[in-house]
Amino acid sequence: MSIRVPFSEVEETCRKAFINIGVPEDKARICARIHTESSADGVESHGLNRIPRFAEYVQKGLVDVHAEPTLVGSKGAAENYDGHLGIGVTNALFCSDRALALAKEHGIGLVAIRNTTHWMRGGTYAWKMAKAGFIAISWINTESCMPMWGSDKPSVGNNPFCIAIPRKNGEIVVDMAMSQYAYGKLGVYRLAGRQLPYPGGFDKDGNLTTDPRAIEDSMRILPTGYWKGSSLAIALDLAAAMISAGKCGSDLDEEHRGSCTGCSQIFIAIDPNMFGDPDELQKMLDRRVAAADAAHPINPARPVKCPGENTIERRKKSLEDGVVVDENVWAQIQSLAAGDLNVRDIASK
Amino acid sequence: MSIRVPFSEVEETCRKAFINIGVPEDKARICARIHTESSADGVESHGLNRIPRFAEYVQKGLVDVHAEPTLVGSKGAAENYDGHLGIGVTNALFCSDRALALAKEHGIGLVAIRNTTHWMRGGTYAWKMAKAGFIAISWINTESCMPMWGSDKPSVGNNPFCIAIPRKNGEIVVDMAMSQYAYGKLGVYRLAGRQLPYPGGFDKDGNLTTDPRAIEDSMRILPTGYWKGSSLAIALDLAAAMISAGKCGSDLDEEHRGSCTGCSQIFIAIDPNMFGDPDELQKMLDRRVAAADAAHPINPARPVKCPGENTIERRKKSLEDGVVVDENVWAQIQSLAAGDLNVRDIASK
Repeated sequence: MSIRVPFSEVEETCRKAFINIGVPEDKARICARIHTESSADGVESHGLNRIPRFAEYVQKGLVDVHAEPTLVGSKGAAENYDGHLGIGVTNALFCSDRALALAKEHGIGLVAIRNTTHWMRGGTYAWKMAKAGFIAISWINTESCMPMWGSDKPSVGNNPFCIAIPRKNGEIVVDMAMSQYAYGKLGVYRLAGRQLPYPGGFDKDGNLTTDPRAIEDSMRILPTGYWKGSSLAIALDLAAAMISAGKCGSDLDEEHRGSCTGCSQIFIAIDPNMFGDPDELQKMLDRRVAAADAAHPINPARPVKCPGENTIERRKKSLEDGVVVDENVWAQIQSLAAGDLNVRDIASK
Repeated sequence: MSIRVPFSEVEETCRKAFINIGVPEDKARICARIHTESSADGVESHGLNRIPRFAEYVQKGLVDVHAEPTLVGSKGAAENYDGHLGIGVTNALFCSDRALALAKEHGIGLVAIRNTTHWMRGGTYAWKMAKAGFIAISWINTESCMPMWGSDKPSVGNNPFCIAIPRKNGEIVVDMAMSQYAYGKLGVYRLAGRQLPYPGGFDKDGNLTTDPRAIEDSMRILPTGYWKGSSLAIALDLAAAMISAGKCGSDLDEEHRGSCTGCSQIFIAIDPNMFGDPDELQKMLDRRVAAADAAHPINPARPVKCPGENTIERRKKSLEDGVVVDENVWAQIQSLAAGDLNVRDIASK
């Protein structure tokens, strides 16, 4: 069962939870904000649902809540940091800010971080950079959780890729993992007793299936677009590891620590107003989005939307009516906020 | 029927064809090389098959074979050019070279070009930049040829996105359109009387289908990964138009000129050796590619490959045994080389 809880109450409860987990006050405030925003935007899997697992990772020493990123090197419009297994969220926000600063100076800015931890909702940083007025591109490499195309065993990460456009009338943001469905989404459908709308993987006999349980059993989640998502996933892995001089996915597999523990991330910011009049460019964005949204709908009750538009709607509703939280998850966050650290990992990948 | 023709013979015949189309000698040499390489790599659709349509576009005035890109503006690591509807291939090669030069100086380089024409095979430029030792990202916006997710009418381009990694033992290159299959591929399957291996679109009744003819009739090609390819396509469109201060996809739709006529393209090059030892980074790439290729195969006769590896194999075979060309296409190229410009458009999108 889900309930709605006021944004400020969720945020404050999360803040107390992070402090009890051992996160310093300034970072606890930031993490509480980000996780609450993710749930408010409808990405509960990497919002509140993920906090118990974060607590577990801190307890296991997989996340160092006191570590700060340190500069490894820089060249022109590019910088590289070591994340020292610090909090993925605060490390990634730091990198986003640096990418923005570099883009302000050089037109484009690139920040690579290695040895960091799970950044939670991937889109967070592209959204932030777009809200700051910049085009953003970011991605991550992770341990293997998806079969390469042609394989039946997990052999590449589902490495999310994000791109965001700073439209004043609503940012356009893509935040896509390289698997057609996340494991978390499979769980949601399984619990609801529903089939996936489209095939999400292969069953153990190698047939494409919409049955979430069959895919969880086979561990053969489908790359998005079959061979295409598989190809893009391995290329993003190599690029992230190479630019950051960090670990590639198979290195992470060998270490076999937590999800994304020791991974690499890339943040690119681009000044969108270098070569055009800002007002004209905004008019162009509005014109293009309006044309897309006016595309003839299959179902008139479900008009076409550009990526990000529905998120902004959900965000608005969450701020007005409260953030949707799962009752079980909420009970655990409240326990953490009350000081009980015996959390169970209910997070979904 | 396909035949194999020696690379040098294909290249020389194409060079004569481009000269007869009116392309100046230096550019004819470059275009011949690029189109021959695309066919040699197995991308005939944008190699030799595309030359007759190029001739048609030149005749119609949609491509100005004498135009050169001119600098519109620059900021730090970024430059913007106007392509003046010059030859897409030579314009894009110019931009790739500029991106490399900027990346050498600033660590990362961004070049945006507006008002250019079809760059033929998208991967050409990422391959070139990777061969020059740089990580490359590039994409394009095009007129609408694919329904947005939720629509049944073409409303966004299938905007290809490319990313390449400079591995000495074989570049890793992704060159992916945002549709699951190109129209050209549908034609190949239809002519062969075969079904697509996976659903490639909706029929006119709205059912997913593997029947290429049904998709050609409905014009409802499937975005790669359903909603994901649709979302990425519109974001790439907006980003390309915004950075280049060029035309967005719906502007191109309104002008309704040729395929990609007046489009925008983005070229990003990244120095991959800024923060790590080049030899160690190459070892990491080899280690990761080897792990991926060692992923347990579904079919032992079809081992897993990283993107680009099969292309390099095909290229090798083409250089040894000749380039595969369709007999009809080859006859047309030979006619063009002999001075007969009454070509029929046999190109496929």
